[in-house]
Amino acid sequence: MSAGPRLLEVRKNVLKQNDLMARALRERFRAQCTFVVSLVSSPGAGKTAFLEKMLTMLQPHYRAAALVGDLATENDAIRLARSRAPVKQITTGTLCHLEAAMVERALDGWQTGQLDFLFIENVGNLVCPSSYDLGENLRLVLLSVTEGEDKPLKYPTIFNSADVAVISKADLAGAVEFDGDLLKANLEAVRPGMRYFSVSAKTGAGMDECLEFLTERMAEFAQRTPA
Amino acid sequence: MSAGPRLLEVRKNVLKQNDLMARALRERFRAQCTFVVSLVSSPGAGKTAFLEKMLTMLQPHYRAAALVGDLATENDAIRLARSRAPVKQITTGTLCHLEAAMVERALDGWQTGQLDFLFIENVGNLVCPSSYDLGENLRLVLLSVTEGEDKPLKYPTIFNSADVAVISKADLAGAVEFDGDLLKANLEAVRPGMRYFSVSAKTGAGMDECLEFLTERMAEFAQRTPA
Repeated sequence: MSAGPRLLEVRKNVLKQNDLMARALRERFRAQCTFVVSLVSSPGAGKTAFLEKMLTMLQPHYRAAALVGDLATENDAIRLARSRAPVKQITTGTLCHLEAAMVERALDGWQTGQLDFLFIENVGNLVCPSSYDLGENLRLVLLSVTEGEDKPLKYPTIFNSADVAVISKADLAGAVEFDGDLLKANLEAVRPGMRYFSVSAKTGAGMDECLEFLTERMAEFAQRTPA
Repeated sequence: MSAGPRLLEVRKNVLKQNDLMARALRERFRAQCTFVVSLVSSPGAGKTAFLEKMLTMLQPHYRAAALVGDLATENDAIRLARSRAPVKQITTGTLCHLEAAMVERALDGWQTGQLDFLFIENVGNLVCPSSYDLGENLRLVLLSVTEGEDKPLKYPTIFNSADVAVISKADLAGAVEFDGDLLKANLEAVRPGMRYFSVSAKTGAGMDECLEFLTERMAEFAQRTPA
């Protein structure tokens, strides 16, 4: 916009470099047979609560780990570590999104070749993360019922760049008079056919269906990967 | 970060240009004696609901108008127009924040000299808007109780750049077991002495105190402005 053509040109180069790095990461994950899921959402939509629950559910049967991005604090890594999965925090300072190079640096020294699942929790931001490929196999966008049914219409890019949606905090749907049909119509308008799950990390509702979806997608990925 | 020095240099120039434009806007608002309040928050924190209520409460006694930013849709302008205040939507496309030049363009043709209050609702984003001065006299950051008490610690820059905080959706505090003391401590850690209000646009709780605060600040501003 008013940022001017020079900024756009430089930004294009940054995105191109990011894409190259992301492609290298994706090849590495494929060779190691690690299924990578990234999580994007607004601040406070419940990425960490969802991920803590999911890691705990995966732990008995799969080797899963997580990287978690925030501007500041190690709070989320500390929370996720309660699942007993290996976790690393990436603090971005003032940067509003994760980039592939940060993921690559964070993996340094980790035996990712031994992982079935790697989750990457992005900075809470419903705009900027959409442009940055992190080498993931699946991008999951979370939207809490408290944020309103109009969010797919107002933030179409991130919903378009995601593979699946998770409607979180379903236990609060009644308190906020959440209209599930309206959300479904709005998702459908922006991304026809998009798969979505309603979950509550607090009560556990819907988490089994979501787990099943992720493990099925991981199994399909593993089948396509040369031994 | 990995964006590289060239991007940072170009971004600095964009910020400098924005600051110059914002300064010109601020002088214009001062000369016209219009008190300008910008609103920043995560997507879905309730900026529009708060603003609709505030505009309706101000309407009988003050001349108030609003500009509202979103990536896409005119939904918020349509909602705010129910307050009968003049409202204009700014759609930013893929840009994650408003810039002073967009405000300047949106004001084109408006008789802002006849306004006591102008509200500017930014794109829902708890990171990027913090760097862009819009010529406002007061920046108000909203945080809904559903987002969690840790947000000031995780997004310190936006809380540092704001003048006052509004804790929104107070009617949901019980349902989400919101800890007001913890939030207060976290705000205090990031921005000692920061004034904040707990409100519910739905029930109206706390809105009177917030209205009083804004009208007092407007009166102080008007006194400092040469006739």
